[in-house]
Amino acid sequence: MIKVGIIGATGYAGGELVRLLLGHREAKIVWYGSRSYVDQKYAKIYQNMFQLVNDTCLDDNMEEMAKQVDVIFTATPQGLCASLVNEEILQKVKIIDLSADFRIKDVSVYEKWYGIEHKAPQYIEEAVYGLCELNREAVKKARLIANPGCYPTCSFLSVYPLVKEGLIDPGTLIIDAKSGTSGAGRGAKVDNLFCEVNENIKAYGVAGHRHTPEIEEQLSLAAGEPVLINFTPHLVPMQRGILVTAYASLKKDVAYEEVKTAYDRYYEKEFFVRMLEKDLCPQTRWVEGSNFVDVNFKIDPRTNRIIMMGAMDNLVKGAAGQAVQNMNLMFGVDEAEGLRMVPVFP
Amino acid sequence: MIKVGIIGATGYAGGELVRLLLGHREAKIVWYGSRSYVDQKYAKIYQNMFQLVNDTCLDDNMEEMAKQVDVIFTATPQGLCASLVNEEILQKVKIIDLSADFRIKDVSVYEKWYGIEHKAPQYIEEAVYGLCELNREAVKKARLIANPGCYPTCSFLSVYPLVKEGLIDPGTLIIDAKSGTSGAGRGAKVDNLFCEVNENIKAYGVAGHRHTPEIEEQLSLAAGEPVLINFTPHLVPMQRGILVTAYASLKKDVAYEEVKTAYDRYYEKEFFVRMLEKDLCPQTRWVEGSNFVDVNFKIDPRTNRIIMMGAMDNLVKGAAGQAVQNMNLMFGVDEAEGLRMVPVFP
Amino acid sequence: MIKVGIIGATGYAGGELVRLLLGHREAKIVWYGSRSYVDQKYAKIYQNMFQLVNDTCLDDNMEEMAKQVDVIFTATPQGLCASLVNEEILQKVKIIDLSADFRIKDVSVYEKWYGIEHKAPQYIEEAVYGLCELNREAVKKARLIANPGCYPTCSFLSVYPLVKEGLIDPGTLIIDAKSGTSGAGRGAKVDNLFCEVNENIKAYGVAGHRHTPEIEEQLSLAAGEPVLINFTPHLVPMQRGILVTAYASLKKDVAYEEVKTAYDRYYEKEFFVRMLEKDLCPQTRWVEGSNFVDVNFKIDPRTNRIIMMGAMDNLVKGAAGQAVQNMNLMFGVDEAEGLRMVPVFP
Amino acid sequence: MIKVGIIGATGYAGGELVRLLLGHREAKIVWYGSRSYVDQKYAKIYQNMFQLVNDTCLDDNMEEMAKQVDVIFTATPQGLCASLVNEEILQKVKIIDLSADFRIKDVSVYEKWYGIEHKAPQYIEEAVYGLCELNREAVKKARLIANPGCYPTCSFLSVYPLVKEGLIDPGTLIIDAKSGTSGAGRGAKVDNLFCEVNENIKAYGVAGHRHTPEIEEQLSLAAGEPVLINFTPHLVPMQRGILVTAYASLKKDVAYEEVKTAYDRYYEKEFFVRMLEKDLCPQTRWVEGSNFVDVNFKIDPRTNRIIMMGAMDNLVKGAAGQAVQNMNLMFGVDEAEGLRMVPVFP
Repeated sequence: MIKVGIIGATGYAGGELVRLLLGHREAKIVWYGSRSYVDQKYAKIYQNMFQLVNDTCLDDNMEEMAKQVDVIFTATPQGLCASLVNEEILQKVKIIDLSADFRIKDVSVYEKWYGIEHKAPQYIEEAVYGLCELNREAVKKARLIANPGCYPTCSFLSVYPLVKEGLIDPGTLIIDAKSGTSGAGRGAKVDNLFCEVNENIKAYGVAGHRHTPEIEEQLSLAAGEPVLINFTPHLVPMQRGILVTAYASLKKDVAYEEVKTAYDRYYEKEFFVRMLEKDLCPQTRWVEGSNFVDVNFKIDPRTNRIIMMGAMDNLVKGAAGQAVQNMNLMFGVDEAEGLRMVPVFP
Repeated sequence: MIKVGIIGATGYAGGELVRLLLGHREAKIVWYGSRSYVDQKYAKIYQNMFQLVNDTCLDDNMEEMAKQVDVIFTATPQGLCASLVNEEILQKVKIIDLSADFRIKDVSVYEKWYGIEHKAPQYIEEAVYGLCELNREAVKKARLIANPGCYPTCSFLSVYPLVKEGLIDPGTLIIDAKSGTSGAGRGAKVDNLFCEVNENIKAYGVAGHRHTPEIEEQLSLAAGEPVLINFTPHLVPMQRGILVTAYASLKKDVAYEEVKTAYDRYYEKEFFVRMLEKDLCPQTRWVEGSNFVDVNFKIDPRTNRIIMMGAMDNLVKGAAGQAVQNMNLMFGVDEAEGLRMVPVFP
Repeated sequence: MIKVGIIGATGYAGGELVRLLLGHREAKIVWYGSRSYVDQKYAKIYQNMFQLVNDTCLDDNMEEMAKQVDVIFTATPQGLCASLVNEEILQKVKIIDLSADFRIKDVSVYEKWYGIEHKAPQYIEEAVYGLCELNREAVKKARLIANPGCYPTCSFLSVYPLVKEGLIDPGTLIIDAKSGTSGAGRGAKVDNLFCEVNENIKAYGVAGHRHTPEIEEQLSLAAGEPVLINFTPHLVPMQRGILVTAYASLKKDVAYEEVKTAYDRYYEKEFFVRMLEKDLCPQTRWVEGSNFVDVNFKIDPRTNRIIMMGAMDNLVKGAAGQAVQNMNLMFGVDEAEGLRMVPVFP
Repeated sequence: MIKVGIIGATGYAGGELVRLLLGHREAKIVWYGSRSYVDQKYAKIYQNMFQLVNDTCLDDNMEEMAKQVDVIFTATPQGLCASLVNEEILQKVKIIDLSADFRIKDVSVYEKWYGIEHKAPQYIEEAVYGLCELNREAVKKARLIANPGCYPTCSFLSVYPLVKEGLIDPGTLIIDAKSGTSGAGRGAKVDNLFCEVNENIKAYGVAGHRHTPEIEEQLSLAAGEPVLINFTPHLVPMQRGILVTAYASLKKDVAYEEVKTAYDRYYEKEFFVRMLEKDLCPQTRWVEGSNFVDVNFKIDPRTNRIIMMGAMDNLVKGAAGQAVQNMNLMFGVDEAEGLRMVPVFP
């Protein structure tokens, strides 16, 4: 039984980790960390867990936690994990960091986009970018996982095969993304009130969202050359789900089959990436509550562009689900354990 | 392995049966019946099942199905199950009917409220009303289960202990219920369009909803005397969930503890019924996607009334989940198998 | 031109006052008061007003405001208006208080339910309860209006004729109300986040909501005897709208026509109260954005009860619209001026 | 008083025309046409109009209507207006066609994208594309107006000044649009049910939506050269609103001020187009229920692209509002008459 500690267990991503791990047959949460709710019953904060979780929230003490658990998930804002991690801890416990601290290899890029000093740059190199479909073997051996961001996961998986295979010109890539509101977290902000979010859609972070350099770094690695993109996220009046609509110019005339083959090369054996049938557009509702990413594309011969689409649950494959998938790989458990939930509809 | 056939597999309740049974370790769906979609891939109708279900829809042929399966779920409008069932079939297969056909013992009441002639009145007596918490032992031995309606399940479980224990005057009972829109089914009706349902709440079926006699019959059995109630359902702009707010006059002065004890007497050992802590109101979101019913009450000493509340997922405990719970009881499987899902939040 | 000042112009009710008054041909807002946003452009807070309102927010200074305006609306939490009002101010300006400060005649009841000391009890007697359809003549002569609460307006108008005419037993009255989320205000609270409100319904303030004594006082006046009721509000995932479903026992056998006649006696000439045709249930969406209250009823001969229903926009007839209606009456303007908006659908 | 007839008065756009015209001081609807609801009270179909509209629906008889009214709005699917219009009618009455029949000058393009034969190609040349801000003078003199599509209006107004001024390379233009569900109409389709639309976002009509050639034609006229674009619409779980996010490469290095000046050149005097302040992103909720289009842009120096954004109410400026604006121009009435509604929030 893998003993699990969660730092930040009362945020939305933390809550989703708890939901998923309660259904995991080889893991058990032994430390519900939540600075804001120390000594309160976890099920008081998340009433859905009533009679399922009887534990009380503990402080976010990584050092103490490291003595008691096999793996720590940090589901906290950026900066916290980097400020707590050290060699002694890493020798005792594996860490899966859901924040951005270890995602970007160039520390100056991280510090510029996030506006904070990195407190543990010495671990950036070691940290494995935990996009399981991409870095499966490295994940298995890692001590420290940088669990990918929600937008980057969906964006990257939607376009990766075509960048890798050189079918599209990466310099023309434009990613227009739409997210449900749980991505904004459980903080009490006017902007996230029901009456502000409902019956509304807006872009935000235009030409400046922090997930941009993360996507660019991964795309650059895939392309073998530096890639700059436009990435525009939008807030949609729904709880869960990310939809990516990506545009790029094709490098040459291609037919549907050729592109399909390129996607299949990377995803055919991937359980969690579903290439839809021709002409079906991914919809967030078909993956809700699950770890699946649905992907498809459409060629526009009029403009010689290709439109690539992906849909995903931001709290599952975009956060807690991918984190559990990483844990499974790190501990040699079946990769899909605890993640076989059928998407919920309606 | 229990072999399962579903008649009406492409409605919302049918889809939920599929979702639940895919996670059931001792059952396997072998017949996806759907008159409207014969020969089409099931996963084309419910794209969430893509790569999880590869089966094709078959006709709703109960006779043929009875030869191949151990249990048939009928998730169809009232009238169909009664028109198909016969002795030959019942000798081969167990039937769990999610429609109203066998819920009401007095056939004239059924025919009056539903406005159709009952085609198999000879099985009404035999059919067991499948509210598992109430009729567990009878369910285990049944051939034919009348799976309770969504409103009746939530209404009955919210008030049952107090009726049974004689704490409230059943003649004063008023049940004000609120339901998500999935209860209205997947039929293409203007009234159920997004633009008609959203930003709206309305009562419907006032003083005439068909679930009224079903609730009354069960309450009458519990009270030991005929009970007439007011039952008013409302349509709420959400997908899933039923909330019941019930009012009744107390027969005598009671304290919180006495009422709590009465509830505990019936529910303390019930996994799926959760009595909340004092003063917490049930919310549909804390049970969403799960088979739980959350129940609580509040005494109003000013009016000498008690307000009883219950929250439930109409597609799970109110339909498919309870149907699976009945199946588990009938086949001697752990009652909660396939139903241990943690409620999804947010 | 009536010069208007608003204290609390940046709350939801304040914003709605601005929206309505911008379309009013005989009133002009000259003071946008908002303690939290002093010196900020009003249209920065409510971007819908961009290029329509160029004013800057001022402090909530009632004394200074009284020198410059003809009428002050206080759209603030309870306690504020009572703490600011005095004789000097009332001699200069009319006040329409949207808070609860002057709604309840018995100051001890106010202090008990609201948990605060009343700072200006000497004006309670003078203040007119501004339910225009009930107190039209008194409103015209008033200096100080207690603008009714949202739930009380909808509850009272739904049941008033039958209480007044003695058709129902007021001691049996149960009011089950449902409200959109704008009623909870624009404060940054976790409970009102999109992800907490959406896909959810819950009761709150059960047997203890502060609007209870306000409803009871008005009903007692109508009945000519003390009336105690059960009132249960619910939070619905929509922005605007209140629906009331009220239950009471009939005092005698009545036919539809007799009840209809009773309603017509009070509402036939009322522009803003619409008695629906037989068997149509009020829906919040048919009044959204307007000052209308839609009312209807259904007799249940089985239980000898009557179900009374009303639908209203909580921000219009339940707050800002009724306040403007009161202003119109006080200043001798056409009662419907600024309030003839057609309900918005969808 | 302008006498108005509406063909298709019971669709969502028709209903919005009625709402707007009821508040118009110089127009009066005398013919509510609706083939599906002939002889039924209009207010039965749209209960929000109860006691505001007492008329009964008549047939969609354009010939008869032309004798009784000054202007006909056709709010029907494509094909109908073209099949009814003729010289005799056009000599009696002005026509504002909300369908696509006369929007595209090249009849072969129309017939290809819409898949139907054009029944009145002889009027295409004469018809004026009723984007008031673009063709104001021509509209004033027109007999037949092609009222623009919802997506084209928002798309065009978001990018027009930069195309016209040659600041962007029109060949790089990508338009990613998001719409509320009312754009899909009031037809009873499973895809538009609440339970299918809610908690979901999807692209549709990818690389093939019919509004593409309409946008391209107008952009080509503005650019002075043929323009092909990518246009991708998405369905968002909200009732009203369109948001456009458009991307293009800048032809040269430009600063914020230069671009702002270009927009101002075209929009500064336009009441209904609001250029937002720097860095504010348009949101659909700030224009809901109104005829405004909110526009803004953001330069990305990293990629040398510009992101242009526009938000609009699809039923108002995207359909009925723009139609009324056209009527006002045609009849010499104040262009904003009946359209001064403040956006509704929340």
